[in-house]
Amino acid sequence: MRNLVPGEPSGRLSDAWRFCVGTGRFDLALRRDYQDSLALVQREIGFRHIRGHGLFSDGVGVHRPYEYGGERHVRHSFTYLDQVVDAYLELGIEPFLELGFMPSGLASGEQTVFWWRGNVTPPSSWQEWAELVRATLTHLIDRYGLDRVRRWPIEVWNEPNLKDFWQGADEAAYHRLYEITARTIKDVDASLQVGGPSISPGSDEWMPRFADFVTARDVPVDFLSRHAYTSGPAQHVPFGVHQTMGPASGLLEQFATTRRQLAGGPLAELPVHITEFNSSYRPDNPVHDTAFNAAYLAPVLAEGGELVDSFSYWTFSDMFEEVGIPTSIFHGGFGLLTHRQIKKPTYHLYAFMARMGDQLLTRGEDHLVTRDSGGRVTVLAWAPVDVTGGPAVAGHTVRLAVPVQGGSAFMLRSSVSEEMGNAWTAWSEMGRPRSPHPKQLDILREAAEPVRRHRSLPVTGGMVELDLTLDRHEVTLVELSPVVDETPPWWDDRRLLGLAEST
Amino acid sequence: MRNLVPGEPSGRLSDAWRFCVGTGRFDLALRRDYQDSLALVQREIGFRHIRGHGLFSDGVGVHRPYEYGGERHVRHSFTYLDQVVDAYLELGIEPFLELGFMPSGLASGEQTVFWWRGNVTPPSSWQEWAELVRATLTHLIDRYGLDRVRRWPIEVWNEPNLKDFWQGADEAAYHRLYEITARTIKDVDASLQVGGPSISPGSDEWMPRFADFVTARDVPVDFLSRHAYTSGPAQHVPFGVHQTMGPASGLLEQFATTRRQLAGGPLAELPVHITEFNSSYRPDNPVHDTAFNAAYLAPVLAEGGELVDSFSYWTFSDMFEEVGIPTSIFHGGFGLLTHRQIKKPTYHLYAFMARMGDQLLTRGEDHLVTRDSGGRVTVLAWAPVDVTGGPAVAGHTVRLAVPVQGGSAFMLRSSVSEEMGNAWTAWSEMGRPRSPHPKQLDILREAAEPVRRHRSLPVTGGMVELDLTLDRHEVTLVELSPVVDETPPWWDDRRLLGLAEST
Amino acid sequence: MRNLVPGEPSGRLSDAWRFCVGTGRFDLALRRDYQDSLALVQREIGFRHIRGHGLFSDGVGVHRPYEYGGERHVRHSFTYLDQVVDAYLELGIEPFLELGFMPSGLASGEQTVFWWRGNVTPPSSWQEWAELVRATLTHLIDRYGLDRVRRWPIEVWNEPNLKDFWQGADEAAYHRLYEITARTIKDVDASLQVGGPSISPGSDEWMPRFADFVTARDVPVDFLSRHAYTSGPAQHVPFGVHQTMGPASGLLEQFATTRRQLAGGPLAELPVHITEFNSSYRPDNPVHDTAFNAAYLAPVLAEGGELVDSFSYWTFSDMFEEVGIPTSIFHGGFGLLTHRQIKKPTYHLYAFMARMGDQLLTRGEDHLVTRDSGGRVTVLAWAPVDVTGGPAVAGHTVRLAVPVQGGSAFMLRSSVSEEMGNAWTAWSEMGRPRSPHPKQLDILREAAEPVRRHRSLPVTGGMVELDLTLDRHEVTLVELSPVVDETPPWWDDRRLLGLAEST
Amino acid sequence: MRNLVPGEPSGRLSDAWRFCVGTGRFDLALRRDYQDSLALVQREIGFRHIRGHGLFSDGVGVHRPYEYGGERHVRHSFTYLDQVVDAYLELGIEPFLELGFMPSGLASGEQTVFWWRGNVTPPSSWQEWAELVRATLTHLIDRYGLDRVRRWPIEVWNEPNLKDFWQGADEAAYHRLYEITARTIKDVDASLQVGGPSISPGSDEWMPRFADFVTARDVPVDFLSRHAYTSGPAQHVPFGVHQTMGPASGLLEQFATTRRQLAGGPLAELPVHITEFNSSYRPDNPVHDTAFNAAYLAPVLAEGGELVDSFSYWTFSDMFEEVGIPTSIFHGGFGLLTHRQIKKPTYHLYAFMARMGDQLLTRGEDHLVTRDSGGRVTVLAWAPVDVTGGPAVAGHTVRLAVPVQGGSAFMLRSSVSEEMGNAWTAWSEMGRPRSPHPKQLDILREAAEPVRRHRSLPVTGGMVELDLTLDRHEVTLVELSPVVDETPPWWDDRRLLGLAEST
Repeated sequence: MRNLVPGEPSGRLSDAWRFCVGTGRFDLALRRDYQDSLALVQREIGFRHIRGHGLFSDGVGVHRPYEYGGERHVRHSFTYLDQVVDAYLELGIEPFLELGFMPSGLASGEQTVFWWRGNVTPPSSWQEWAELVRATLTHLIDRYGLDRVRRWPIEVWNEPNLKDFWQGADEAAYHRLYEITARTIKDVDASLQVGGPSISPGSDEWMPRFADFVTARDVPVDFLSRHAYTSGPAQHVPFGVHQTMGPASGLLEQFATTRRQLAGGPLAELPVHITEFNSSYRPDNPVHDTAFNAAYLAPVLAEGGELVDSFSYWTFSDMFEEVGIPTSIFHGGFGLLTHRQIKKPTYHLYAFMARMGDQLLTRGEDHLVTRDSGGRVTVLAWAPVDVTGGPAVAGHTVRLAVPVQGGSAFMLRSSVSEEMGNAWTAWSEMGRPRSPHPKQLDILREAAEPVRRHRSLPVTGGMVELDLTLDRHEVTLVELSPVVDETPPWWDDRRLLGLAEST
Repeated sequence: MRNLVPGEPSGRLSDAWRFCVGTGRFDLALRRDYQDSLALVQREIGFRHIRGHGLFSDGVGVHRPYEYGGERHVRHSFTYLDQVVDAYLELGIEPFLELGFMPSGLASGEQTVFWWRGNVTPPSSWQEWAELVRATLTHLIDRYGLDRVRRWPIEVWNEPNLKDFWQGADEAAYHRLYEITARTIKDVDASLQVGGPSISPGSDEWMPRFADFVTARDVPVDFLSRHAYTSGPAQHVPFGVHQTMGPASGLLEQFATTRRQLAGGPLAELPVHITEFNSSYRPDNPVHDTAFNAAYLAPVLAEGGELVDSFSYWTFSDMFEEVGIPTSIFHGGFGLLTHRQIKKPTYHLYAFMARMGDQLLTRGEDHLVTRDSGGRVTVLAWAPVDVTGGPAVAGHTVRLAVPVQGGSAFMLRSSVSEEMGNAWTAWSEMGRPRSPHPKQLDILREAAEPVRRHRSLPVTGGMVELDLTLDRHEVTLVELSPVVDETPPWWDDRRLLGLAEST
Repeated sequence: MRNLVPGEPSGRLSDAWRFCVGTGRFDLALRRDYQDSLALVQREIGFRHIRGHGLFSDGVGVHRPYEYGGERHVRHSFTYLDQVVDAYLELGIEPFLELGFMPSGLASGEQTVFWWRGNVTPPSSWQEWAELVRATLTHLIDRYGLDRVRRWPIEVWNEPNLKDFWQGADEAAYHRLYEITARTIKDVDASLQVGGPSISPGSDEWMPRFADFVTARDVPVDFLSRHAYTSGPAQHVPFGVHQTMGPASGLLEQFATTRRQLAGGPLAELPVHITEFNSSYRPDNPVHDTAFNAAYLAPVLAEGGELVDSFSYWTFSDMFEEVGIPTSIFHGGFGLLTHRQIKKPTYHLYAFMARMGDQLLTRGEDHLVTRDSGGRVTVLAWAPVDVTGGPAVAGHTVRLAVPVQGGSAFMLRSSVSEEMGNAWTAWSEMGRPRSPHPKQLDILREAAEPVRRHRSLPVTGGMVELDLTLDRHEVTLVELSPVVDETPPWWDDRRLLGLAEST
Repeated sequence: MRNLVPGEPSGRLSDAWRFCVGTGRFDLALRRDYQDSLALVQREIGFRHIRGHGLFSDGVGVHRPYEYGGERHVRHSFTYLDQVVDAYLELGIEPFLELGFMPSGLASGEQTVFWWRGNVTPPSSWQEWAELVRATLTHLIDRYGLDRVRRWPIEVWNEPNLKDFWQGADEAAYHRLYEITARTIKDVDASLQVGGPSISPGSDEWMPRFADFVTARDVPVDFLSRHAYTSGPAQHVPFGVHQTMGPASGLLEQFATTRRQLAGGPLAELPVHITEFNSSYRPDNPVHDTAFNAAYLAPVLAEGGELVDSFSYWTFSDMFEEVGIPTSIFHGGFGLLTHRQIKKPTYHLYAFMARMGDQLLTRGEDHLVTRDSGGRVTVLAWAPVDVTGGPAVAGHTVRLAVPVQGGSAFMLRSSVSEEMGNAWTAWSEMGRPRSPHPKQLDILREAAEPVRRHRSLPVTGGMVELDLTLDRHEVTLVELSPVVDETPPWWDDRRLLGLAEST
């Protein structure tokens, strides 16, 4: 049976999917490969904000204590902060600030997280912490203007509910950190946006307690934030892990939780940001490199905007060093792109979303249909996935009747799947070279381009009949544009070789 | 039956196919679209020289007579000449100089050729012509150095055997022009290379008479040149023509003619340059835009280097105005590229040639096989064409056994055909928009990329068995690279979703 | 005596000076050197609109008559029009459309103007002209959107009051052309802006008659336009002319004339555009290359915006061919830039204007003072010129007391004059090479940079005392920025070589 | 008295000064600011090789031990190594490899050097070290080709004579490290070039002992290396140091030492590379930012090539983190360029050297004169410095008679000094902003351009008389080019304003 797509939009397609994207630690943004990747992502996808850890970690060098005249002083230095934010703005993206981790000169302990050793202990001086926050925000406003900085959400710390990220997962200490930070920020300028508690899945109970805390003490809060992942425990192999995967609907459920928890309370109307999400939370799980990942996340991108104000894919690039420097071009990194800008299938899922129109025509369990102001109708469709890794299903079919103006439509279909637009498959066939030669990189970049097909389709009764058969783990974008026929009356294909006049 | 490709090369693949490429009139090289196209061509193909008409025509502004002190003087001005040659060198290509047409201030008559009115009459003063030649060469040497300029062949005039190009097709006058020019050039520097007679097909008898003339009078000559085309008379439609087409072997026969004519004579050892060739000689014949044209010319590119020292495709870009300014993005222009850099199938034929290795393994009627120093074996194959436009033949098959090192090969196959990598087909489906919107241009550029497929193939007994089925008018490039397998011992695809440990 | 600059602005500095700039004929915009120059101009100056001749001339190829089925048809073709406008928009500038000259296929006669032969006769068919106008505007709206195109003023023809530009300088025929054109444009969309009569100096009486004509017949008109030049008759030398020059105030008087003529009438409130102005109206008068030209025009730029809505410098680049292809890098062209982007002094006058703030503090006969929102105060000052070429005056002095915040000011002074920032002087010293070598071009580009000096100045009583001594034909920009002193307390210049501790 | 410069060259100017340049640690080359700086340096100076520390440190991630099957394995990973070397080659520079420091997974102890913690202990396994060296060289040859890699000198470790850089400054252990490394390298390919001992000043006795060691045991050695600095002990202030400075001749003496030590021995003919030199060895001494530094080093660059095969300025960029992340744009870093590409005076000393000809005409204590093949004569001159910081000397004068062809010369003079081309002075006047705004950066970049003056000078008796008065700490480049006068006979400056015809 063919689904009939309505001719009138039911609303606008939310762009919560592009509000923010994740990144490796702050100072990685100084790298050229990082900036090359971000430039590509911005050209073809176009995120609004970017969020990562480590703004206050030693690699950015903001907090710089020194002795002078026999006393301790602190210089706040913005050499690298400026280089990063300048680069972001030049690339058309703005920070989603995350305040953390602890500068070692201000830390109260030595516990660190990650290969790059982010210190996760509370400050040794709350006053010096507040001065650090104040100096940083003041500098940003001075350099970039208040109009801009007030558009940048400011999140306090990352996943304080986990012992790895906040010493002892000490909730009271986090509340204190949040309160001091939020009050300092508002003291710099009341229009700045601050939020938290940036919790990981598995500690949902932190959210209502955070809401109670800020309400009870009248602490400023402009948004709530949490993370969402669906993978099970890590099974280790050298330089990698494997994990089981829950159903993708689990991500949407996690998205929905916060608003449900806040319902009826004083924070019910605040924006909710999913400041990290992905299938697996590990930067070395090969699932991120697969077409499975794209097909798995497609319904999440299609629907997530109904549930939250943003959900930020963790992360745009494999330039990421939490478990060390990657030893292979494909290594299971979070990135939409590998080092050197090879596009993964999930990259194309995002690039396809970026080509959707803003008028929402319909949404189904395996498709999303929109139209833009020029009359171009776009269909995003995806094959269902089996998280148990069952045998491949025969071609999944999506059948639609799509409203298009005019007498015929130009159809352009772009696809990625296990075979199509899949550099990882090509790389496997190449023998999985860890350090590909420049020519191999070129081939991989080409292999990563979606397979594109085009055709002229008749419009009958205002509708185009579309029968899409999807390959294993395929995500496909169909664009239907009304044709204005400019073929001159004398055109005759048969005359191409000069022969037809005689017929 | 499978053709067995030998493991040892029989020689080197000639690069006569890339020695030179044609261009529209000289001053078109000032244009940005032209330079953007040439940059692309040089990046992906890489020609050595470029040749076009009009160096001395008014649009370049070299010959500038003026009155001073009551007398006629001539200023030789190189404002645009320098801009063009600077741009060429910056793009990694060097001129193949063609001296002509006549500046209007030096012309003896008013006959012109083309929409842009190139004057085709002899000089009113042979001395002033010689001074023009001398001043131009002297300036080029001064600016670019003798080492460089002596690599640039210098051809005297274009197709003097045709009345449209040389008033009255006056052979004696051409011989005089040639002699004065050649002697002047050698007087500037004896190491400069000069040649002619640059004749079009249909006047083969000019060649032996030219040889006799220069021999008899001991006129300097460093190479011989002629043109080759295989199309019949023009059947006009508005803004275009259709023509019948002779077999492609006719081009190879035309290539071979000059050397045959010179055999045994004193010029027998001189280089022979085909300074123009194509299927049709008309800049408004849609055949140039088709996959037919690529498949038609494939055997010519594969074999032409056995017959001549160069054969120059006429032309690299549709930026060309001999019959006026094109009124449509596709209009049957000579170009490998349209305006705005949409690649035609013949572009890819050249790009495929540019990826061939320099060791020639074998050549057949529908294929060419080479290897490079890294062990990559490349197969160029093409479907046979029917110049009578007969019904499409079912898939043509090329079956080869190809020698490759190692245990398996990574195969990358790139194809263009009626359907694949064919922007003209996409454009037809779009309704043939004459002035495509920017987004349509993007789609056309994408549609023009070859379809690429990849696979891992086993090497058995040192050989890969290759069965290539070709679509209508397909030209395909197969690249086979030995695989070095770096897959680690712990890799198990089945564990991707974390499930396989239990099995 | 020192002029006291007020601390509060008297208004905003008009940006009429940057509303529009002139260009050589429309299709020259296809050239790379042209686009390189425009890119530079836009980066450092930033004009809003660009206006030139020849949109409908044969070199753009819009009007294309053909026979089919035994009848005459016209195809309207936008191949080059689109390339040009796409390039303009990409470079951040929009067209100021001038409709003209006559396509040869639509012309009623053979009279042409310029080396490039623009046909200046009325149309042979008024209906076909109207269709040409309609098709062009419709296409532009279709491609670029109505919101954009309605910002582009549309001027009907150029200088119809001169026999060289409009056959017979036939005023009635121009009125007819205007009426048909204006009505056609408004029929395409009533919000499009149309105007005329684009007259040259010396026929001021055309303006009131034009006003009467459109008023009497209720012909649409959205703006009035005319030109302004101050040079006398041409004294010819080979490849150039010399002319006497009236005082620069003559330009301001010409600017003022139109509004004075319209005062009290129904068109009194309409915008007035000076769609061309310069000192000399000749493209081969070396005065354009000099510092004299910059100093001469400085008061015009400083004050012109009080009199008209725009005044468009004729032209931004020497890529211009009205009297033929230039034979020398410096040749007296109109350009702010020569070919290959050597900046002339007048370029810097414009670049200095682009660095002025938007708050007007004061204006005098030899200076203009502004401030921007960041507190930076800018002084543009210029030496008076003597159009009789009298002997050089000793250094002219401008003495100001300028209000600046804080305790000290960082002063940056940039100057061009006969000696400073003057590539023409350097080129003369080089021996006036007509075709400079690449290294000479580099030197000329460097020589063309303003001489920049900087200093710290004390602020006393809120004021900085500024004593500027100006060289012959100097134009100078002084920027005064409040200093925030971050020098640390331990800094001691004397310790640089490690020696001062002992003192 | 005027020095008479000879008309015939006495030899070629050595380019030892550009053979190599220093850099911060290896992985900093991943940064965009670093690459932007290197691109600028290569465009305007053009070094051949680049050398820095940390190739084997953890930040590059080459040595990666892991457990598998119950055993320890090592993966050699080249993810970042390839990114860096690819970038170098793309920028036209090749590595001068320095093998060190110790990967933490291979270290025998925990001693580290620098803020970024380079481990300076011997390997825990000499075999694993040898495998690391072998794998790295093998990979480089595989990826870049033996022809290239054999041009890259390979130095074993850095300054092993200092306890900070090599645990215990253990000479025997260094000899062992050198022997194992050198034998491994030669085992990979005998044509690779290996050398040492890379000692700092103050341990000259290491050199003969190293020579004895390699000679006695027949250990491969292709070159000798050491460092040279002339500064005294550090006097600390917050974020910086001051040091006294020995005379610049001390650098030349250090250069000369090695060859003197080797004289008469079996290594006497080997190349000697000064793999680091500068005035101060501290990355936070403001002397590096000054004109003093340029004038101080000018005679060293002019003469150093007579003494050694290369001397490598330490370093090209302030992107350098040995004492932490710089807290201010100017901070006394080694760089020729600051972050964000502000040129220091010493940058221009190098850029001036890059404009010298290859024919050496003469050399004096305050000048160097060369000529190139085009007849351009260049004079590099410098003011003498007083390392005791004595009061400024009145203008130093250099008077030369310089041989130039033709009747006149075009002189271009470019200068940097305390006032000219000195961004540091401008920055001081600005109030020393640590994090300059983008517009301040623009001003600083402009302020950093040399002051350029030009003039036409008469050639009398084949000579130009040159009187150069130098400012405090000035370094100046004078270029004299023969003038070919193309001024037309009708040119008359006095006619510019159209008036002179009457005179």
